[in-house]
Amino acid sequence: KLRDVSTATQRMSVQVTYWAGRGRAEPLRNLLAAGGIEFGNTCLTAESGVADLAALRSTGKLAYDQLPLVEIDGLNLAQNFPSAVYIAQKGGLYPVEPVDQFTAGHVWAASQDARLPMLGFPFHGDKEKVWTEISGDKALIGRFFPKWEALLAKGGGPFFLGARASFADVGVFEAIDCLQDLFGAAKLEEVTAGFPLLRAHYTVTKALGRLKVWCEERPKVFLPPPEYAAAVNTTLGR
Amino acid sequence: KLRDVSTATQRMSVQVTYWAGRGRAEPLRNLLAAGGIEFGNTCLTAESGVADLAALRSTGKLAYDQLPLVEIDGLNLAQNFPSAVYIAQKGGLYPVEPVDQFTAGHVWAASQDARLPMLGFPFHGDKEKVWTEISGDKALIGRFFPKWEALLAKGGGPFFLGARASFADVGVFEAIDCLQDLFGAAKLEEVTAGFPLLRAHYTVTKALGRLKVWCEERPKVFLPPPEYAAAVNTTLGR
Repeated sequence: KLRDVSTATQRMSVQVTYWAGRGRAEPLRNLLAAGGIEFGNTCLTAESGVADLAALRSTGKLAYDQLPLVEIDGLNLAQNFPSAVYIAQKGGLYPVEPVDQFTAGHVWAASQDARLPMLGFPFHGDKEKVWTEISGDKALIGRFFPKWEALLAKGGGPFFLGARASFADVGVFEAIDCLQDLFGAAKLEEVTAGFPLLRAHYTVTKALGRLKVWCEERPKVFLPPPEYAAAVNTTLGR
Repeated sequence: KLRDVSTATQRMSVQVTYWAGRGRAEPLRNLLAAGGIEFGNTCLTAESGVADLAALRSTGKLAYDQLPLVEIDGLNLAQNFPSAVYIAQKGGLYPVEPVDQFTAGHVWAASQDARLPMLGFPFHGDKEKVWTEISGDKALIGRFFPKWEALLAKGGGPFFLGARASFADVGVFEAIDCLQDLFGAAKLEEVTAGFPLLRAHYTVTKALGRLKVWCEERPKVFLPPPEYAAAVNTTLGR
């Protein structure tokens, strides 16, 4: 009954269940892709989402009754950070040393904070509101861009930990990619003018694993923002 | 100029900088204590917090200009989850296997979600509001207690991963301890009546490392909730 938009003809061994938009699933999808892990998408719809979510909850697969769910290695991943750690380990994007794990970890966590205002867009449709929120001095552009640029400079690049890519890179890539989706390439170029390392970082990160491939496949999977929002709202009864 | 409430006569080698209340620092303080790691507290005050925070930001120690800051091993920890991972590793409370890391991780993350409504109390002083928020079907008592009780049953206890303690145990302990602080021991007994494993878990976790010692020292460090809230508000200019 779920709208199964797997690009493969059958359900993949790694499967992401969410709605057909970025939302809280996209950082994990990007992480799977960057780690070279192929995955399918099961997307809940406005038509049958209520029943599908109830059925899913009754299976016990949702640790806290929430989505996204990432099924991998017989596990049912839930909660953003621990899911990212597991997927990063699987995809060779988790550092070995505790100090590096911490550095990559705080960048990942910050990227998840920084993207939050953009998650609201499909629900209210107000780009100016999003712009105000992400350009303030405590937000993506005002707070996080300068911090990340300095960190890239300190590590020697091209990745946050230097020569070796980690999940930190994917988190920041996705937040910036989300900004580009919403406001266009010209606007991205404008706001990253003062951050040359971050700009180079975007390009080099996109080349990891299957990330570029997924970015190209994604439009075939996603619904237009208003339809995605309707599917989420209907499913959650709001 | 900071109100230094270290119980030692000098600044400790591990130092937590925050305000004199639970807030976003207490889960990390509990984790340090449960791991047997001694730490000092530097608490910002209403009197000099603005200048102290500005001075602290200018040192570059705050990765994203935010508190808490945990200074340990020459690192300046920021962001809840990666800080917890680092401290847990240091204190022998981080599992070795990725599957166990994931399980402990989702419990830690959920415990941080679940305690959020209680963080608001010092700022609005409305216990009924907090009670409504934590007892709903998507909150600490309604959603997380049943899930955690089932997980404890599945693992065989007394800890979430069975015989071996992890940072998951400390996160859940602190959330429940926070509830007890706010509503009293009798209320805690009442709401945990249907969760015998979770109740036993609270007691066995409190015995880890120096956790009980810290719980006894804490009243000497903390300010009454309204004074703590005033210190936070003044420092952050709100």
